[in-house]
Amino acid sequence: MTSSAATKSELPVFEDVRAAARRIEGHAVRTPLLGSPALDEKLGGRLLVKAEPLQRTGSFKFRGAYNKLSQIPQAARANGVVAYSSGNHAQGVAAAAKMLGIPAWIIMPKDAPVIKIARTKEYGATVVPYDRYTEDREAMGLELQAKHGATLVRPYDDPDIIAGQGTIGLEIAEQCGALGIAPDAVIVCCGGGGLVSGTALALSQAMPDVPVYSAEPKDFDDTKRSLESGRRESNDPKARSICDALLAATPGEMTFALNKRLLKGGLAVSDDEARAAMATAFLELKLVLEPGGAVAVASVLSGKYPIKGKTVVAVASGGNVDPAQFAQVLGA
Amino acid sequence: MTSSAATKSELPVFEDVRAAARRIEGHAVRTPLLGSPALDEKLGGRLLVKAEPLQRTGSFKFRGAYNKLSQIPQAARANGVVAYSSGNHAQGVAAAAKMLGIPAWIIMPKDAPVIKIARTKEYGATVVPYDRYTEDREAMGLELQAKHGATLVRPYDDPDIIAGQGTIGLEIAEQCGALGIAPDAVIVCCGGGGLVSGTALALSQAMPDVPVYSAEPKDFDDTKRSLESGRRESNDPKARSICDALLAATPGEMTFALNKRLLKGGLAVSDDEARAAMATAFLELKLVLEPGGAVAVASVLSGKYPIKGKTVVAVASGGNVDPAQFAQVLGA
Repeated sequence: MTSSAATKSELPVFEDVRAAARRIEGHAVRTPLLGSPALDEKLGGRLLVKAEPLQRTGSFKFRGAYNKLSQIPQAARANGVVAYSSGNHAQGVAAAAKMLGIPAWIIMPKDAPVIKIARTKEYGATVVPYDRYTEDREAMGLELQAKHGATLVRPYDDPDIIAGQGTIGLEIAEQCGALGIAPDAVIVCCGGGGLVSGTALALSQAMPDVPVYSAEPKDFDDTKRSLESGRRESNDPKARSICDALLAATPGEMTFALNKRLLKGGLAVSDDEARAAMATAFLELKLVLEPGGAVAVASVLSGKYPIKGKTVVAVASGGNVDPAQFAQVLGA
Repeated sequence: MTSSAATKSELPVFEDVRAAARRIEGHAVRTPLLGSPALDEKLGGRLLVKAEPLQRTGSFKFRGAYNKLSQIPQAARANGVVAYSSGNHAQGVAAAAKMLGIPAWIIMPKDAPVIKIARTKEYGATVVPYDRYTEDREAMGLELQAKHGATLVRPYDDPDIIAGQGTIGLEIAEQCGALGIAPDAVIVCCGGGGLVSGTALALSQAMPDVPVYSAEPKDFDDTKRSLESGRRESNDPKARSICDALLAATPGEMTFALNKRLLKGGLAVSDDEARAAMATAFLELKLVLEPGGAVAVASVLSGKYPIKGKTVVAVASGGNVDPAQFAQVLGA
C-alpha cells in the first residue's frame, strides 16, 4: 500500500480505546443506557440497553470511522477514503469524512436498505453498488484505493476501527458505575466482530469480572461456532437473514484473535426473534432498532441468555431500518 | 371532600418543583436530551428533544402522579385513588399506585389507544370506560371518589401534579447547563396545561431568560387562544384530532393562571404536521413518538417556530402509540 495511513497490523490494546475516546469526544454522541421498569418486571431481571441508534448516523459505526479518519495525515486526506459496507459503516465513514473534509467512495450492496444508501449519499460520499452474493467487495475496494491513492477503511479488521467501537465499553463501564450496577453480562451484536471485540477489550480492564458475549443471527453465527471450535468458521454462502448489518461470511482475523481471548461465548437468534425484539423495543423502550441492531436484545428476550434475577447490558447497535420494513415488523 | 389528601387550592411555586424532584428521584427516569446532527444540518439550527417516551410508563405523566400519590397519608392509601385520563395519566397513576401499594380506579375513554388501556390494566388498576364525547368524566370521578372514600388525582389542575411535571424543566436546565447551551426557546406539548405550566414554573427560576411556548393540535389550541385573549377559551366540541393525549376542552384553571403569567405564547400544528414529526423522529432520532407527544417537535419541523440559527428544546411528552397507527404513519 502506498497510503501513509495504511492499516496497522498489530492488535489494539486497552490504551488505544482510551485514545479513541479522547478523539471522538464532542464529535460522537455519548449514548444513554436505557431501561424499562415495566419490561424488567416481565423479565424478572434488569435489562439495560446501550442505545447506539441514538449515535450520530444511527449506529455505532461512526465511532470507529471517526477514530480512523481523524488520524489520516493532512497530506493524505485529499486522496480520499474507500470503504465497503452493508450500510452502517458506509454512513459512519461518509459522515466522518464530511466532517473532516475528506472525499469518500463507498462500495455498498445493491440490496442494502434504501435508507442506508440514501443517507450515505446525503453525507456527500460517492456510492459504488455491488452484488452482495456474486461480487468481491474487498477486491473492488483495493482497486478503487489503488486508482485514487485513497486510504482503505476496513469495516472491522483494523485496530483503529476496533478501538473506536470499543469506546462503547468504556461508556458502559462508566454508566454502570454511575448507577452503582455490576452487570452479570454484557451482550453485543456481532457481524465481523469489530464492535464486540472493541467492547470486550475496553471491558477487560474497565469491568474485568463481567463476561462478554457476542450475539448473531442464527445462520450467521460464525463467531459463536468459531469460539466453540477455536478457529475461524464460515457461514453457508446460501444463508439469508433480515439482519442486513450482520452478514459477514466469517470472523475477522484481528477481531477473532481478540474475541477468542476475551469473549465468554456466543449467542444466536432467529430472524423472528430479532423481529420480536424490534417490536418489544418499540413498545417498551420507544426505541427504533434495525434487525441486526436487535439481536443482542433478542438474545435476552428469547431466553437464549436467561436474565431471571440478573442484570444484563445489551448493546443495540443501530436503528437504520426502512419505514416499510419497520411497519411490517409492527404488524407481525 | 372527606379525603385527607384533598387537592390543594393554591398555585404551586418553584420550591414545590424542587420538592417534587426529590420525591421522584430514583423512581422516575431522568430522561435524556436527544439531538441529531444530521437533522440539525437540515434545519440550520439545533433541536434538542427532551425524550419523555423514555420515561417510566412511556410518558411524562408518571412524574406528577408519583409526586401526588407519594404524599397521600398512609391512613388514606387503602381507600385508593381515582383518576380520569385519556391514557397517559392513567398509566402514570396506575404505575405509581402499584409501586406505593394503593388501589386505583381509572376512568378512560372507550376510544383510547388499545396500548394505553392494556397497560393501565397491567399495572393492576381497575379501568372504568366512558364515552369521550357524551359522558362527564369529572362527575364519574367524583362519584367513584365518594363511593370509595378515595383520593381524586386530577390530570392537571392540581399543584402536586403540576410540580411533578415541572421536574422536566429542572432537568432541561441542568442538561443544557452541562452542554453549555442557553436555548432560544423551550416548546412543550399542551393538553390541559400541566406539563407546560410546571415546566415554565421550573424554568422561570432555573433559566429565567428563556421563553417557553405551548404546542397544541390546531383545532385544540385553547391555550394558544386563551393566551391571546387573556381568558380561558374553549374548543369546538365537534373538533377531532389524532393527538388523543391533548384533547382537553379548555385550559385548566390553575394551569392557565400559571401559563398566563409564564408563557411567551402558543403554537399549533395540524394532524399531518404531527404525523410528519413522528416519521422524522423515527428516521432521525430513532425515537417513538405518539401523535400528541410529537406536537412540540412538529411546531419546529413545520416552521411554526423558525429555528434557523437558533437552539430549541422541544419536550416530546410521550410514545404510547398503537403499532398499527405507527405503521400507518410510517407508510404515509
